[in-house]
Amino acid sequence: MTRFRVSVHIVPRKGLLDPQGKAVADALHTLGFPTVTDVHVGRHLVIETSASDARQAEESVRDMCSRLLANPVTEDFEIAAVVAA
Amino acid sequence: MTRFRVSVHIVPRKGLLDPQGKAVADALHTLGFPTVTDVHVGRHLVIETSASDARQAEESVRDMCSRLLANPVTEDFEIAAVVAA
Repeated sequence: MTRFRVSVHIVPRKGLLDPQGKAVADALHTLGFPTVTDVHVGRHLVIETSASDARQAEESVRDMCSRLLANPVTEDFEIAAVVAA
Repeated sequence: MTRFRVSVHIVPRKGLLDPQGKAVADALHTLGFPTVTDVHVGRHLVIETSASDARQAEESVRDMCSRLLANPVTEDFEIAAVVAA
């Protein structure tokens, strides 16, 4: 078993309202960044786990995302990186 | 001016308590993922902004992070990617 560090991005599904992103974009305009056109706010998770190889680590994190970490109705997730720790 | 999509990771500073990550790790153990050793939960922001080149876009997002998006006492941020949109 090798230890892997798996990074995951969980983001609001495209087309759904992202009120937090809207609030951040408005705040940035107020602070003097008028060039900002859009902001999306999601979560960045780094999961350290043991697995026999990188594919198995990724598979297991995908399973965690579907079952606990991402809301299947409102969020999408993607595995950003799998690196041996 | 070109439009750029800049991705940022904002994570709890190393060594500081990450109660949300601890809670997620515990929940994953309960759900049947005993191989998980550690979880860190941060934010993943995607900022769409206009700039004359990629370097200027990155510089401007760095400034946004220092001034609004990241808590300088408890969080670290890194620019994960700058792509032309």
